[in-house]
Amino acid sequence: MVRVGVVGASGYAGGELLRLLLKHGKVDLTFATSKRNVGEYVFRVHPNLRGMTELQFIDNDVSKMAGLADLVLTALPHGQSIQMISQLASSGLKVVDLSADFRLKDPADYPRWYGFEHPNVELLSKFVYAVPELNKDAISRTSLAASPGCMAITSILTMAPLFKQKEVVVDRRHVVVDAKIASSGSGGKPSLSTHFSERFGVLRPYKPAGHRHTGEIEQQLSWLGGEPVTVSMSAHAINMVRGILTTCHVFYEGDVQNSTVWKMYRGLYSGKPFVRLVKDKKGPFRLPDPKVVIGSNFCDIGFEIDERGHRIVAIGAIDNLIKGAAGNAVQVMNIMLGLDEKQGIYDAPLHPV
Amino acid sequence: MVRVGVVGASGYAGGELLRLLLKHGKVDLTFATSKRNVGEYVFRVHPNLRGMTELQFIDNDVSKMAGLADLVLTALPHGQSIQMISQLASSGLKVVDLSADFRLKDPADYPRWYGFEHPNVELLSKFVYAVPELNKDAISRTSLAASPGCMAITSILTMAPLFKQKEVVVDRRHVVVDAKIASSGSGGKPSLSTHFSERFGVLRPYKPAGHRHTGEIEQQLSWLGGEPVTVSMSAHAINMVRGILTTCHVFYEGDVQNSTVWKMYRGLYSGKPFVRLVKDKKGPFRLPDPKVVIGSNFCDIGFEIDERGHRIVAIGAIDNLIKGAAGNAVQVMNIMLGLDEKQGIYDAPLHPV
Amino acid sequence: MVRVGVVGASGYAGGELLRLLLKHGKVDLTFATSKRNVGEYVFRVHPNLRGMTELQFIDNDVSKMAGLADLVLTALPHGQSIQMISQLASSGLKVVDLSADFRLKDPADYPRWYGFEHPNVELLSKFVYAVPELNKDAISRTSLAASPGCMAITSILTMAPLFKQKEVVVDRRHVVVDAKIASSGSGGKPSLSTHFSERFGVLRPYKPAGHRHTGEIEQQLSWLGGEPVTVSMSAHAINMVRGILTTCHVFYEGDVQNSTVWKMYRGLYSGKPFVRLVKDKKGPFRLPDPKVVIGSNFCDIGFEIDERGHRIVAIGAIDNLIKGAAGNAVQVMNIMLGLDEKQGIYDAPLHPV
Amino acid sequence: MVRVGVVGASGYAGGELLRLLLKHGKVDLTFATSKRNVGEYVFRVHPNLRGMTELQFIDNDVSKMAGLADLVLTALPHGQSIQMISQLASSGLKVVDLSADFRLKDPADYPRWYGFEHPNVELLSKFVYAVPELNKDAISRTSLAASPGCMAITSILTMAPLFKQKEVVVDRRHVVVDAKIASSGSGGKPSLSTHFSERFGVLRPYKPAGHRHTGEIEQQLSWLGGEPVTVSMSAHAINMVRGILTTCHVFYEGDVQNSTVWKMYRGLYSGKPFVRLVKDKKGPFRLPDPKVVIGSNFCDIGFEIDERGHRIVAIGAIDNLIKGAAGNAVQVMNIMLGLDEKQGIYDAPLHPV
Repeated sequence: MVRVGVVGASGYAGGELLRLLLKHGKVDLTFATSKRNVGEYVFRVHPNLRGMTELQFIDNDVSKMAGLADLVLTALPHGQSIQMISQLASSGLKVVDLSADFRLKDPADYPRWYGFEHPNVELLSKFVYAVPELNKDAISRTSLAASPGCMAITSILTMAPLFKQKEVVVDRRHVVVDAKIASSGSGGKPSLSTHFSERFGVLRPYKPAGHRHTGEIEQQLSWLGGEPVTVSMSAHAINMVRGILTTCHVFYEGDVQNSTVWKMYRGLYSGKPFVRLVKDKKGPFRLPDPKVVIGSNFCDIGFEIDERGHRIVAIGAIDNLIKGAAGNAVQVMNIMLGLDEKQGIYDAPLHPV
Repeated sequence: MVRVGVVGASGYAGGELLRLLLKHGKVDLTFATSKRNVGEYVFRVHPNLRGMTELQFIDNDVSKMAGLADLVLTALPHGQSIQMISQLASSGLKVVDLSADFRLKDPADYPRWYGFEHPNVELLSKFVYAVPELNKDAISRTSLAASPGCMAITSILTMAPLFKQKEVVVDRRHVVVDAKIASSGSGGKPSLSTHFSERFGVLRPYKPAGHRHTGEIEQQLSWLGGEPVTVSMSAHAINMVRGILTTCHVFYEGDVQNSTVWKMYRGLYSGKPFVRLVKDKKGPFRLPDPKVVIGSNFCDIGFEIDERGHRIVAIGAIDNLIKGAAGNAVQVMNIMLGLDEKQGIYDAPLHPV
Repeated sequence: MVRVGVVGASGYAGGELLRLLLKHGKVDLTFATSKRNVGEYVFRVHPNLRGMTELQFIDNDVSKMAGLADLVLTALPHGQSIQMISQLASSGLKVVDLSADFRLKDPADYPRWYGFEHPNVELLSKFVYAVPELNKDAISRTSLAASPGCMAITSILTMAPLFKQKEVVVDRRHVVVDAKIASSGSGGKPSLSTHFSERFGVLRPYKPAGHRHTGEIEQQLSWLGGEPVTVSMSAHAINMVRGILTTCHVFYEGDVQNSTVWKMYRGLYSGKPFVRLVKDKKGPFRLPDPKVVIGSNFCDIGFEIDERGHRIVAIGAIDNLIKGAAGNAVQVMNIMLGLDEKQGIYDAPLHPV
Repeated sequence: MVRVGVVGASGYAGGELLRLLLKHGKVDLTFATSKRNVGEYVFRVHPNLRGMTELQFIDNDVSKMAGLADLVLTALPHGQSIQMISQLASSGLKVVDLSADFRLKDPADYPRWYGFEHPNVELLSKFVYAVPELNKDAISRTSLAASPGCMAITSILTMAPLFKQKEVVVDRRHVVVDAKIASSGSGGKPSLSTHFSERFGVLRPYKPAGHRHTGEIEQQLSWLGGEPVTVSMSAHAINMVRGILTTCHVFYEGDVQNSTVWKMYRGLYSGKPFVRLVKDKKGPFRLPDPKVVIGSNFCDIGFEIDERGHRIVAIGAIDNLIKGAAGNAVQVMNIMLGLDEKQGIYDAPLHPV
């Protein structure tokens, strides 16, 4: 069995990594680090894991990690992992990073979206931005992968066929992504804006413009279509703990048939185990809804054509902690290790929940 | 005191009308009709009103209404009120209608959005589409008013300054309204899609294209700006009982300053008691959020400029049953009766709730 | 108009006091204090009040308060108000205190339930524990009133007839109060246990035994019945922002008829405007439920007899911030000022919400 | 691989059975019946299963079932399964029944709690009431098992040590079970009381006395302790989709130490993989809370001693659709088939969710 460790395992993405790796079946979880919780039982921080493991957190000591694992999943806050990952990479460890630190290919994007100059541009170029549905081959050949941001992967998967498949002429300047995200996406640190009485029942437009994931989405859609795309994204906090819905408003030219768009989506996603195309004629869940992906690594995708407005409304839904974080990272890990990409993460969502 | 009655008082909008009229102070609520509940105490259908009134529902008998009231508020389902309102109007009663039956000015819009030919086009032309913040004078002179749809009034108020004030050149073809609405907007009739276990925790894109309120929004924005506007609207059901948020993505040409847009909004809404401009630098509620309008007739409006995308993100929030239905109707009634428009409805929202 | 001020106005109870006093009609709200927010607009802390007031917070300077008001409502954290209230009282101001500092009559109860010796026992004896439905006369004659704890007032009102009216022999040793309370009851200070992702969806037994409100409940039930009562209370945090439900399990001896218990409840609560007896044969709200009191000062009370277990299940529901805090305090203030007890607070609940 | 089928697979418990059996690993799911949905894809009714199975519902034809399976799990509404189960049993099939039809041992309990005479008393006596933590041996020897009601199994597991282990003298007449249950416990059929706008935010005391699960709880506690027990149960509907919390108030005589009660709980549950004892000194989840069992077959159990009231507050939490229905049934099936009882159901809960 391959030995894997998790760095930065006390946050929500870290907790999900532990949950998934503990039941994985083909890897051994050998360590979990947390600077704040060294020596503490993992289940004291992640109460769902009570009874599932006696693992205790260890410190972030890179020198020991190489001896303990073959591959490391890192889930540190943005900006904090660059140095550690440089060390891990030079120790010969495979790395799947869940932070934003190695996602953007153009070094100029770091000051633009994150406010700092990237200190290790050479390493940046070695990382693969890992969306298994779009670049599985590249992932299978790399030892360094950056797992996308949660709203980024949803938006990219939702719109990829529209930009990659060339059967519809889309307007690359007026692409609106109206994203809705549950609370766990903002992490586990209490504040006034996450205080239950203030947070319950909101529909809070917390980032109407300038959300950092915009950079990733533009990067990938431009790469897929071979032409620059400008994305206008707005992010809203919603009254749930898990889940993302991205409503992508994409204008087109000329006439477009339902069957054409279907073909584009089927063409790209046929045989992809974690994408479900959802476009039924009836029923409460005839289009994607985060409610029916919770607990799974699925990305549900559907669309509707608005002929009056010359608009395709493409819609994607995921569990932000799974396909938007830990689940995608494990899927990437599986591919990097030559395993079945579904290994350990092919769970049905819970319903109703 | 003016005598008023409510027709179709068993639904959620009807219940809110009763609640507001019972405490109004300047009108007498003389009757409430409900075909299904004739003879039943109002508080058996609206449990919040227990102890507040001993009123019982009566039948929809137009011949008696004229003797009981001077003004009638009608809250019947779309399509069912046209004939009754024709009779009420010819009895000399003032009418504030909460349905869609008299909202659209162009008769061709009824087959387009509602699937039927309007049977009384003459009467249609006499109704004023009533948004007090935009056409108070016309309301004060009419005896027949149509109160807007809940998502329509939010969208119209949110974008009106951008289309009416001519200081920014906006793109009238790519106007995206991404609307989020709570459950009470779909009424009180149980179904599988409103069953709690299926409805809780959703973010359901139930009408990505073709929502009927689109017609009202286009009508009013085109009228305000003097030029036709195409609105691309998508409606989502959210995990709350009350509240609407409309995120309006409006593209512009050239450069736009924050101060210019501020001036447009202040110019139109200065002195309007039920519009609050919300655009703070910090705090959980620095932009509009339905959470902090619940229980009130306020429409909170704010915006943010996305320079990269040449986009203004204008955001509006209301309580769908108040400013989106009963509250706006009472405000309209107040104006029609020559009362202070705030009479009986100038309540602070509840917080936290 | 009587001038009133609010001390400790930045918390949730303080915010509700401001909301109710601003619309009261017979008093002038002259000041609101908050040490942390001196000079800040009230609506920056209570976003619902935006547009309703231009009031700014002032400091807790007792020497100035006497010149500004005739009556003060104090909503400071437990233990912090004793000294200030002593000063306010000696300035001749009337006081309605919302903290626990003057609720318990027996000085020995302070070390028992709150862990400190009460420093002003003489003043303690002058305060009236104020439940208007049970001791309106005493309230009308006092100038110093202690408004009850939120779960205490619900429990007391729910069970008072069973202990005061002597028509049923109740077991005074096995009185179980299973209380469920929404998040606003624990205030506005963020912590891990109130962090939305951790708090959403809980049913958390946060105080299975030893809850401080037990002392108040025992004090009042013992006083009402003339015999000591032992209350076994357990408190649970629930997935809502407002509302309390107390399920009171009271065992009895012999046989008991529904009509007898009805008579006891009607006897005590007839003519009490803020108690609604709720015991219907059908409908979703045939028994008390916090959902249908939100936004009001009502306490809904009902019961059911369990003949097998010789048990009366008495149930009470309130909005914890209104009848459980600010609303009751204003009702008490009204009585102390000789006003109609309903003045300014006789609002219908919102439904649905 | 053993072949298993599910009868009555369109409800929520049926859907959970399908989800668990599809991933079980040691059984083959060969059929799922639903009279209303014959021929329909399972994923149209259970949208979470989209992409997980191409199974279609078949009719309830007992004659075919024997050829298709070795063991059948039945999840029909109460009262509807008796005849079918009689036929299944006489076909030699093993049966795990999730309804109440074979849970009560005393035939007189059926008219008492369910309002009908049991038509097959002989078969009734052959069923084992199956709580694997309490009677695993009996389960391993039977071919007919009745899986308990959701609130019953929680209450029984929560209190079993107090009644079975004889180290504390408990009061068998004043046992209060205050149960809180999420919406999925009442099934998938829409009605006014389950309509989202009416159901959201409730804390509804829907069955303060006389809940049917009382019979099961009394039966098992009396059996465990060898003496009759009277249970006073009250059931509340809460603002969640999954989860049960039972707060059990048990009075005792004399003095009781924490360590004694701990010993009783550890004694009974040591080595039981699906019971987690939860009684920490700090943290938001220091006692059982349904939030941290969602998605799992765990029953979390804890307690607190109230010395003043001579009361043990014992608390249990489960996911009502798993340990309260499908999960326990599969655990029972595993035991009946000689498999590891954890097979296919040893999942960690999701957190946060």
